[in-house]
Amino acid sequence: MSAPAPGSGRARSTRRQFLLGGAVAGVGAAAAIGVDLALSAAGTAAPAVPSTPLNGDEIVPFHGIHQAGIDTDAQAHGTFVAIDLNDDVDAAALRRLMRILSDDAERLTQGRGALADSEPELAISPARLTVTFGFGPRFVQRARGAAAAPAWLRPLPAFAIDRLQDEFSGGDLLLQLAADDPLTVAHATRMLLKDARGFGRVRWTQQGFRRAYGTVAPGTTMRNLFGQVDGTSNPKPGTSEFDTVVWSSEGWLAGGTGMVVRRIHMNLDKWDRLDRPGREQSVGRTLATGAPLTGTAEHDEPDFDAKTAIGFPVIPEFSHVRRARPEDAAQRIFRRAYNYDERPADAEVSDSGLVFVSFQADVDGQFVPIQRRLDDLDLLNEWTTPIGSAVFAIPPGCAPGGYIGETLLG
Amino acid sequence: MSAPAPGSGRARSTRRQFLLGGAVAGVGAAAAIGVDLALSAAGTAAPAVPSTPLNGDEIVPFHGIHQAGIDTDAQAHGTFVAIDLNDDVDAAALRRLMRILSDDAERLTQGRGALADSEPELAISPARLTVTFGFGPRFVQRARGAAAAPAWLRPLPAFAIDRLQDEFSGGDLLLQLAADDPLTVAHATRMLLKDARGFGRVRWTQQGFRRAYGTVAPGTTMRNLFGQVDGTSNPKPGTSEFDTVVWSSEGWLAGGTGMVVRRIHMNLDKWDRLDRPGREQSVGRTLATGAPLTGTAEHDEPDFDAKTAIGFPVIPEFSHVRRARPEDAAQRIFRRAYNYDERPADAEVSDSGLVFVSFQADVDGQFVPIQRRLDDLDLLNEWTTPIGSAVFAIPPGCAPGGYIGETLLG
Repeated sequence: MSAPAPGSGRARSTRRQFLLGGAVAGVGAAAAIGVDLALSAAGTAAPAVPSTPLNGDEIVPFHGIHQAGIDTDAQAHGTFVAIDLNDDVDAAALRRLMRILSDDAERLTQGRGALADSEPELAISPARLTVTFGFGPRFVQRARGAAAAPAWLRPLPAFAIDRLQDEFSGGDLLLQLAADDPLTVAHATRMLLKDARGFGRVRWTQQGFRRAYGTVAPGTTMRNLFGQVDGTSNPKPGTSEFDTVVWSSEGWLAGGTGMVVRRIHMNLDKWDRLDRPGREQSVGRTLATGAPLTGTAEHDEPDFDAKTAIGFPVIPEFSHVRRARPEDAAQRIFRRAYNYDERPADAEVSDSGLVFVSFQADVDGQFVPIQRRLDDLDLLNEWTTPIGSAVFAIPPGCAPGGYIGETLLG
Repeated sequence: MSAPAPGSGRARSTRRQFLLGGAVAGVGAAAAIGVDLALSAAGTAAPAVPSTPLNGDEIVPFHGIHQAGIDTDAQAHGTFVAIDLNDDVDAAALRRLMRILSDDAERLTQGRGALADSEPELAISPARLTVTFGFGPRFVQRARGAAAAPAWLRPLPAFAIDRLQDEFSGGDLLLQLAADDPLTVAHATRMLLKDARGFGRVRWTQQGFRRAYGTVAPGTTMRNLFGQVDGTSNPKPGTSEFDTVVWSSEGWLAGGTGMVVRRIHMNLDKWDRLDRPGREQSVGRTLATGAPLTGTAEHDEPDFDAKTAIGFPVIPEFSHVRRARPEDAAQRIFRRAYNYDERPADAEVSDSGLVFVSFQADVDGQFVPIQRRLDDLDLLNEWTTPIGSAVFAIPPGCAPGGYIGETLLG
């Protein structure tokens, strides 16, 4: 798929039926007839029989220049699984694996059961399901030799703030599954893991969420569990800026991208002890709207030169927004994070944080400089700790009859 | 609140605005005017300015004869937290605790921040949030002495199939938080746990999900991770049958009920090895529709006398539907379960199952006989294992100015 707006293709027709069906159900039969006439008068054919309004029917195309799940408007639930390949898996086996996975991913995202689906009834509501595959260094090495890997496909440099755990780091093959329905994600994850079972073992799983579909207005920037508006300065899918930031044009990776997945533990209890002004200074944005401290609306451009009456910067030097800001235009990334909030172990009160996800064509050139500045000085480091880190090459999409990874393996 | 239909009160008006706003957004301005006229013609005033369609604005009333979250149409996400009280917490402290918790539960469910909310921006989308409080044996004992507890308020009798873990069993005070948005649940849980922090410590937390709001048609019976339609024979809120099954009329518990929470691990890998006929026999229902093996539609009455051509029962003796069937009409329960699917530990492929939840006025008289029959013989026991168990008394609701638990503590 390529930039499937939530309203494109079958999704659009489903959405329209949803809204019409809903309106009819909501206002009764007499009004429904009126609506029907009104729509006809406006040149829009209304469905003869209003269908049931089901978000679950919405579909994101699987095939396309790019894989889905990157420029797709972020779904409510995301599961990330990293698989370590068995030692005997060679290029031919990888080809088989990616054909099977691509086939089942296509089926599941289009609302059909997997080829050997044990619970096909759980597959009928795709709810905008996307499956995105990523390759770690060992995958590429097995597929075509280490020379085929982009230079940035390796663990990130060590940062002083990192407290990385093996159980959330690395991996040979990444599956990102995302949909607006948690049962859809759970079922699809299970089906794909059954496909992969003979080829490797699960290294780590991370599950996250955003606001549910329909909770807030479309296009609202997400809030993390600190209550912060998170992701304001993201490039917008469909723009040339997005295309430049995200899509690679290099060899087998052309039409693909680079992916960073970092698990960021957030110490909510410690954050609690900070007052609102302190929180706003640490980020450089207001909590209420996400506006920079020099502005009034979320998307106002921060004024880093503005000074307080006594001469201090309004947006502090140590604030996250200033430190994360690229020094040159090439240092941009596209973030697509999920919150996590898990059952705490033993004495902990909470186990919460962010599955930080970013896509960028060149991890070394775009992500690393930003992370280095944050590592040096970012007040948010007081309350956040990276506990997992992984880098994957995301191959391009494929056409019907093809499979994800064919540009590397074919 | 008492039986808040999803469309009642502010919820209803929000829903209507949602549908109207949605229709207007969906078909463009020209059609919108037409819709507006059509609605006026049908005698329904359309909003002058179409409002944004937000599920997140839907509210379930907090006050009422019964607590919310029991007869409320089940929300997509549920979190269950059991708290063990500190040794020094007496009746006066419990009164303070329940006043604070009730006050914050009211605020949060109505879309306002908690009294000392550290992230009030996360509270503005209640998404049908309900908070339901339950009391374990020690809570009642501390509040008014052991004699005040109903006879059934104690751990369930030991069943042969149980493999109970302390970390999912028992508890003095239960919080059930449910909403259609996972961020809403996470924030509200955190706020209430901060209130309770000085009074006890978290004993266990369980998080679960159902289909997202809008994925499937309203009123669809949920499916569990085995793919089974789960909960067909549930009494329907608003009926006299429901009232008889659920609501107690005994002393301080009048208007309240009894709650059983059991964590049922489901062995999906073993289940995979069973073919579809085998699965359908084990439950006594078809997987496609949930119809009994003697019927064609989900809500058809099972015919337990029907025989196959060679004389065996069509619905096997060992099937779940036959074993779970009450022997007399008094043995009914109301189920309100959630699926769980967690990040598996170490070598496991999945950690999945059901947070089984049932409400019944008399746990000993209604729940225990059913569970005993299932313990004796139920083919599903091959694939399911109870690993947690707890029983709570759910006090009635309260009026504005009152608090949950006042009939016991007041």
